[in-house]
Amino acid sequence: MKTLRQMGEHAAIAALTANLKAVGDDCAVLPQPGSEYDLVLTSDPLIQNVHFTAGATPEQIANKAVARVLSDFAAMGAEPQYLLINLVAPPDQNVRLLEKIYSEFSSLFGKFGVEIVGGDLAQGLVLELHVFGVGRVPKGTALLRSGAKPGNLIYVTGPLGGAQKSGKHLTFEPRLEWGNALRESGAVTSMMDISDGLATDLRHILKASGVGAELDSHAIPLNGTLDEALFDGEDFELLFTAPPDAVFQGLEEKQAAIQWLPSIGKVTANLNALLLDGEPLDGKAFEHFKN
Amino acid sequence: MKTLRQMGEHAAIAALTANLKAVGDDCAVLPQPGSEYDLVLTSDPLIQNVHFTAGATPEQIANKAVARVLSDFAAMGAEPQYLLINLVAPPDQNVRLLEKIYSEFSSLFGKFGVEIVGGDLAQGLVLELHVFGVGRVPKGTALLRSGAKPGNLIYVTGPLGGAQKSGKHLTFEPRLEWGNALRESGAVTSMMDISDGLATDLRHILKASGVGAELDSHAIPLNGTLDEALFDGEDFELLFTAPPDAVFQGLEEKQAAIQWLPSIGKVTANLNALLLDGEPLDGKAFEHFKN
Repeated sequence: MKTLRQMGEHAAIAALTANLKAVGDDCAVLPQPGSEYDLVLTSDPLIQNVHFTAGATPEQIANKAVARVLSDFAAMGAEPQYLLINLVAPPDQNVRLLEKIYSEFSSLFGKFGVEIVGGDLAQGLVLELHVFGVGRVPKGTALLRSGAKPGNLIYVTGPLGGAQKSGKHLTFEPRLEWGNALRESGAVTSMMDISDGLATDLRHILKASGVGAELDSHAIPLNGTLDEALFDGEDFELLFTAPPDAVFQGLEEKQAAIQWLPSIGKVTANLNALLLDGEPLDGKAFEHFKN
Repeated sequence: MKTLRQMGEHAAIAALTANLKAVGDDCAVLPQPGSEYDLVLTSDPLIQNVHFTAGATPEQIANKAVARVLSDFAAMGAEPQYLLINLVAPPDQNVRLLEKIYSEFSSLFGKFGVEIVGGDLAQGLVLELHVFGVGRVPKGTALLRSGAKPGNLIYVTGPLGGAQKSGKHLTFEPRLEWGNALRESGAVTSMMDISDGLATDLRHILKASGVGAELDSHAIPLNGTLDEALFDGEDFELLFTAPPDAVFQGLEEKQAAIQWLPSIGKVTANLNALLLDGEPLDGKAFEHFKN
């Protein structure tokens, strides 16, 4: 009788969902007959003592719960429209803290154009927020993990690492504008957001695209050490690939940023092989349950 | 500093969501410009030791988690299409039980035509399933709680009470066919599903519609005692209102059932007043956090 801890999160998800419709990208993208848009759906849990600790403020808890979901939309180049939020709390929960969380929610429409249209409140052992997002993307244009091609360059939208230590994992802004602009540019071949660390998440793109990659350690923008950038996770920057001659049309304002942000490596034909400065990159990656 | 237990579930939801877009019906119904359908969204949590206990089988846990959400769609006369499921489990969770739960999920498409298209697996203290549902209803035809009119008759789709005792709360089938047929009949003025007991849920319709009601205790179909029918909850039958001369078109097969199921009372103009056999019906109702 195996436990989740023995299996690890990724193996458990793979085993448990084997018989369900394939779920691989940050969001599910569902074509709608007769519509100019595909429907885009995603959900993320935020759990006390797992995704945040007692030191987090109500505003930070609300921000992280929602921003994780919005980052999934950014990763597809999609537009979030509606949220539903299940809040779980113990019966002795101080209502004032919940009021502050909901007050933060009510400011989201102004910030991101998303409306909270439903959800539920239930009794549990610790504070949890389960955020479900519904949105859309022009038909057939969602950026998937599976489109990276050998010779493509690899980019990230900002510096990586140390997000738990610095508190950025609670306060980050989802890269919705970047995601939208990158999709509209027509130049991006694959994209996802970095939640588990550059090494682990890049491997998801490699596997989905059937390619390999070589990273240049000196080109990776850092918030801390290289090790933190590769393995920490929760940066919520976008990781994407594009041909070397790509023109990021419509990205006038961000064009400078893209030229400033060097590509951090390139895609190779070497199936699933991930090299750092020419050497195989093995090693640990952030994974729930195995901690 | 009030706690959730001191406030009670309904007061807490009302207070916390006061600044958000009004959420009152079983699902959110969202018009989509250019579409013949309104988008329909809902979510429900299922938490160990709250909504089920250690004695429940994996199949029952999976059924209840999903059927609660599908019942919300039935209550609007809507068609569920997609589900996302966040599963929370402790690290020492036996994976075999989770496999059985997911195996049950994979049979849902055949049973109800809904596809599981996403979700997440996270670490927590007890087993929880958060099910998010996405579906549709022909534009402007969703059955709300707010349409009951004085003189309407009140109906339920099946016997009430004792659902926890009998185990029906784990094994019930959502009334999707009923919901769809009742919407298509064009005769129904308001509808919801019975999750908190006939007394509490009928009050939701009265409040939303600005009306009152008189119930006839002898006409209420019972699975146990009258008290259980009024206050137990988790029957997941549909509660609806219709004019006395309503013809339930397109309900040929169920017509017999509707004629057999007597109306259990009638809607009055007496704002929010709920009478049982001519006397005010006060009293307890099932409410989370206050147990």
